[in-house]
Amino acid sequence: MEIIKAKTFFDGDTGVLKGDKISRSERRLKDMEGIFTDKDAYERMPPDTLVYKVEVHEAVKDIPGGLYFGVSHVYPGRVGHEYFMTKGHFHARRDTAEYYWGITGHGVLLFMDEKRTVWAEEIIPGSLHYIPGNIAHRLINSGDSELTVGACWPSDAGHDYTTIVNAGFSARILEKNGRPEIHF
Amino acid sequence: MEIIKAKTFFDGDTGVLKGDKISRSERRLKDMEGIFTDKDAYERMPPDTLVYKVEVHEAVKDIPGGLYFGVSHVYPGRVGHEYFMTKGHFHARRDTAEYYWGITGHGVLLFMDEKRTVWAEEIIPGSLHYIPGNIAHRLINSGDSELTVGACWPSDAGHDYTTIVNAGFSARILEKNGRPEIHF
Repeated sequence: MEIIKAKTFFDGDTGVLKGDKISRSERRLKDMEGIFTDKDAYERMPPDTLVYKVEVHEAVKDIPGGLYFGVSHVYPGRVGHEYFMTKGHFHARRDTAEYYWGITGHGVLLFMDEKRTVWAEEIIPGSLHYIPGNIAHRLINSGDSELTVGACWPSDAGHDYTTIVNAGFSARILEKNGRPEIHF
Repeated sequence: MEIIKAKTFFDGDTGVLKGDKISRSERRLKDMEGIFTDKDAYERMPPDTLVYKVEVHEAVKDIPGGLYFGVSHVYPGRVGHEYFMTKGHFHARRDTAEYYWGITGHGVLLFMDEKRTVWAEEIIPGSLHYIPGNIAHRLINSGDSELTVGACWPSDAGHDYTTIVNAGFSARILEKNGRPEIHF
């Protein structure tokens, strides 16, 4: 019997994920209606503008005890003073955690618990972030280059985007004098 | 409210893990009685020889839905023709998966299911490996430099080392003409 060559590759220095069983999804401005606070600025921007891309290695599907491994790429940009960011979500199975780690760029990880209490951590290349169960999370690119973040989470976690689409986060990260600030 | 600076850091290019809530454990030859096949070669080596070190970020303890994030360092060396390796284990909660990814060095990931069927994947910098639930796993350093491997797994997985200590894996990775081979 031979030692099998790996079929999937993750470059921890650049975030490139390639090989077998990788799914990719993109979110453009037109997919993010109602997410950004400045509606006029949103309407003025090209709707096809790419905001972020998510790549996921899916060795299994939705099974208890399984895991997914992925990379999120949030592109630099703003809608008015609000940085490009992910829609953000709770996990559908609320008590499941997730790890994020910064690979390239500068950003903010916004956390919100179910009582709508918010806090935020700075993401830099090499920062490691634990997202406990029952906590919504959103990635924000506060820099001027691509924010690349590695992720690992339980494959039965699922995504609840609806709670955030309906009620938002209780704080936003806005640019002020070239730096990110939390606004309630 | 301020954006909080990260307190834990993971360098995806070198595998250095540092900061808050990191536990470290080491295995030396004297901790691995009965693991290597060549007993005479084992007895002749300094018992304090470091075989591997595991570092784990433990943001939580053993809770369902939680995760751990770690780095394993397997040092180069052999006991006779058998490469330095980890003890290997099943997860105590058998159905839990794990991700490994190669960071530095060259190695082999040995898998074994509960029917004792074995297979092996080559680990190189940038290789990504999914270990499904119910599968024992062992890291083997088949190169001449440190093998560094990132890992993420459910915090309620636990470790069952005893099954492997008692019955071993049904195959070993041995050096032959400077290259790793599977031996049954």
